[in-house]
Amino acid sequence: MSELRHRRGEGDGNDKAETAGESDHVDSEEEKPLEDKYVEDMAKNLPQGTDKTPEMLDSALSGLSSRWRNWVIRGIFTWLMIGAFCLLIYGGPLALMITVLCVQVKCFEEIINIGYAVYRVHGLPWFRSLSWYFLLTSNYFFYGENLIDYFGVVINRTDYLKFLVTYHRFISFCLYCVGFVWFVLSLVKRYYMRQFSLFAWTHVALLIVVTQSYLIIQNIFEGLIWFIVPVSMIICNDVMAYVFGFFFGKTPLIKLSPKKTWEGFVGGGFATVVFGMFIAYFMSQYPYFVCPIEYSESVGRMAMDCEPSLLFRLQEYTPPLCLQPLMKIIGMEKFNMYPFMIHSLSLSVFSSVIGPFGGFFASGFKRAFKIKDFGDVIPGHGGIMDRFDCQFLMATFVNVYITSFIRTATPQKLLQQVYNLKPEQQLQLFYALKESLENRNILNLLP
Amino acid sequence: MSELRHRRGEGDGNDKAETAGESDHVDSEEEKPLEDKYVEDMAKNLPQGTDKTPEMLDSALSGLSSRWRNWVIRGIFTWLMIGAFCLLIYGGPLALMITVLCVQVKCFEEIINIGYAVYRVHGLPWFRSLSWYFLLTSNYFFYGENLIDYFGVVINRTDYLKFLVTYHRFISFCLYCVGFVWFVLSLVKRYYMRQFSLFAWTHVALLIVVTQSYLIIQNIFEGLIWFIVPVSMIICNDVMAYVFGFFFGKTPLIKLSPKKTWEGFVGGGFATVVFGMFIAYFMSQYPYFVCPIEYSESVGRMAMDCEPSLLFRLQEYTPPLCLQPLMKIIGMEKFNMYPFMIHSLSLSVFSSVIGPFGGFFASGFKRAFKIKDFGDVIPGHGGIMDRFDCQFLMATFVNVYITSFIRTATPQKLLQQVYNLKPEQQLQLFYALKESLENRNILNLLP
Repeated sequence: MSELRHRRGEGDGNDKAETAGESDHVDSEEEKPLEDKYVEDMAKNLPQGTDKTPEMLDSALSGLSSRWRNWVIRGIFTWLMIGAFCLLIYGGPLALMITVLCVQVKCFEEIINIGYAVYRVHGLPWFRSLSWYFLLTSNYFFYGENLIDYFGVVINRTDYLKFLVTYHRFISFCLYCVGFVWFVLSLVKRYYMRQFSLFAWTHVALLIVVTQSYLIIQNIFEGLIWFIVPVSMIICNDVMAYVFGFFFGKTPLIKLSPKKTWEGFVGGGFATVVFGMFIAYFMSQYPYFVCPIEYSESVGRMAMDCEPSLLFRLQEYTPPLCLQPLMKIIGMEKFNMYPFMIHSLSLSVFSSVIGPFGGFFASGFKRAFKIKDFGDVIPGHGGIMDRFDCQFLMATFVNVYITSFIRTATPQKLLQQVYNLKPEQQLQLFYALKESLENRNILNLLP
Repeated sequence: MSELRHRRGEGDGNDKAETAGESDHVDSEEEKPLEDKYVEDMAKNLPQGTDKTPEMLDSALSGLSSRWRNWVIRGIFTWLMIGAFCLLIYGGPLALMITVLCVQVKCFEEIINIGYAVYRVHGLPWFRSLSWYFLLTSNYFFYGENLIDYFGVVINRTDYLKFLVTYHRFISFCLYCVGFVWFVLSLVKRYYMRQFSLFAWTHVALLIVVTQSYLIIQNIFEGLIWFIVPVSMIICNDVMAYVFGFFFGKTPLIKLSPKKTWEGFVGGGFATVVFGMFIAYFMSQYPYFVCPIEYSESVGRMAMDCEPSLLFRLQEYTPPLCLQPLMKIIGMEKFNMYPFMIHSLSLSVFSSVIGPFGGFFASGFKRAFKIKDFGDVIPGHGGIMDRFDCQFLMATFVNVYITSFIRTATPQKLLQQVYNLKPEQQLQLFYALKESLENRNILNLLP
């Protein structure tokens, strides 16, 4: 769940100088000194992520140059985070979901705090409470939708909860309306513009953080593999791009992040594709990773054992024609692999081509508001949001990928919906289906 | 589809003076003269909705005082818009949906234009194209979802379209990613902050305009009554609040809109509830308004004839106990009404209590950015967005209301999903359902 970026040897130490240098570039092509002054003035109040390093580490590394020191600190905390991630996986889906929730709240806090600082809201009435209220409301809505989707049968048994399920959307909407009215009533003449800007800021933060963490939870329910593989691909891409950039980086990639290089981008991408194949092969073997998480009525809790779907069963492939001579030489005319490995290829290509743009977006955002990092929680890495910027885009991709290419309406899911109907409606459906099956000669084929 | 607000006698002529007066209030409690200057500076570039009145009308009304002149102009254009709305209803659901689409595009344009002016983007590369690209993408996604929902069966017949249906979300996401990457690549050093602000602005506009027009289209599909009744309630509330405010208004309601009065708020609300009962009673009688719009395979086009659901059949009610003595006196111990009229009561209460907050929100927004109106399309009314601010909130309410209280999963809809399965899966579901029905002794009850 942890992740490494600031890759391609982007030394943190130089960042500040670079940002400061930026304001020298104010050429005279347009009429906005006032606005420039406003932005600079504003930046003074912003929380600047500091490079706080544990003291012990600091003294142990005092002999190294700043470039290598940063490399070591970053490396240590990367391994710590990867370790923590493995522990969480061992902890099971519930532990992972709770972590997603915590990360979401922390990311929201970091984004919102920048908003506070940008619009200097010290005197603004109610604003902190309002943003957190909106976070609560949207979480109530989205997590509720997930719970209903996956635990509908169980929840419907309790009368009290049944009410919450049936009117879930209505309740959520009412909660939102309360926030909306509250916002309108809290408007104060002098602050209009800032209040509206913060309102928009809050909503964009919700859009980025809450909706995407909702998608992540959905991915976890499809099977841990759909969560772990993409997350570790992004981690791998970040780490390897940093490593390749550190040792071979020469050609600058994009103006937005001057320390990122084509060498890091290409090397990281290549490493990610190879890594993706291996991790997909490894994980496809274990039901723990492969099985969707479903509430089992017989056991009375979430179950993760199943007959693995076709995706996760070894199949024989013949290499494409153009590669066959080559394969003949190494004596592999046919080979076995899991179909999931093909999907992992799409995922790794996305995570190494489009994924980095999530990072560019975040660094552009940081530059726009002249902050160095979103926070200073992880030494050498910055805030939580700095590590998760690419994860959000990736989660949406995985979710869309699953709905488009993997998930098909299963008889099991539909049957559950049928059982939610009134008995006479169930009968009605039964007879209609029977007639249709008979008409199409499907039912008669079987004894 | 038209609507009247600026109610409670809020004279347009006085608005500007009021806005100008606002900046005098800058008291010295905090340190932001720079920002105030920035906002004022910015406001100079904003498009100010003008009160352009057709010349002929202008000369004919030259004898009246400004207060009455405004009343007459507003009245004339209100009736014109109500007439146009009736024509559209006569034109049928397709005409209405196209109108919703046009209104949506126009509203988006108005909001986005303010954003351009606020952040002065004259030199910004690509920005106009980008916002319109995002509008296109999100419309492709949302309208596609609607089409698939309601015309899935038909679309699936054409092979070419089937591809679009199956991968709809994936295609939409890819389109969005193109926009996202395009945005990141278009970032230019000096403009970072404005580019990100406009990016957020575009997304908030999409959230307000596109998602809600998607909900409106869904409401139309549920039956024209679910569209016409709420829309006309908002119109009625706006008109009547304006009328009550014009003649009886004394007590100011909210600081945000100094011309709105409690008298207008209460009078408008009361009128809306009464009006809602009447229009609900009137419309419940006609299948044209009441029937959901479904694609009929037999006719090969959208059909609007049905056996009206229970909601729209007269039922006998006994008045609540406390009212019975009163009812006895007037000789009405029992009375007939449509159950829909009870729902119309909830709708009218929402439209007259929470609805106006949509308007307050919009006028707060206009004050924040020191603009008078969103546009100047309709004389006496301002821009399209000025007339539709409350409609969007109402549409969401109606949609949520329908999903929570009205729509239940019908056997018909589920059956369609079953037919989308593979034949062997249909059989599997059939036998599972049969067994379950037999176990619960539901199937044996019938011969």
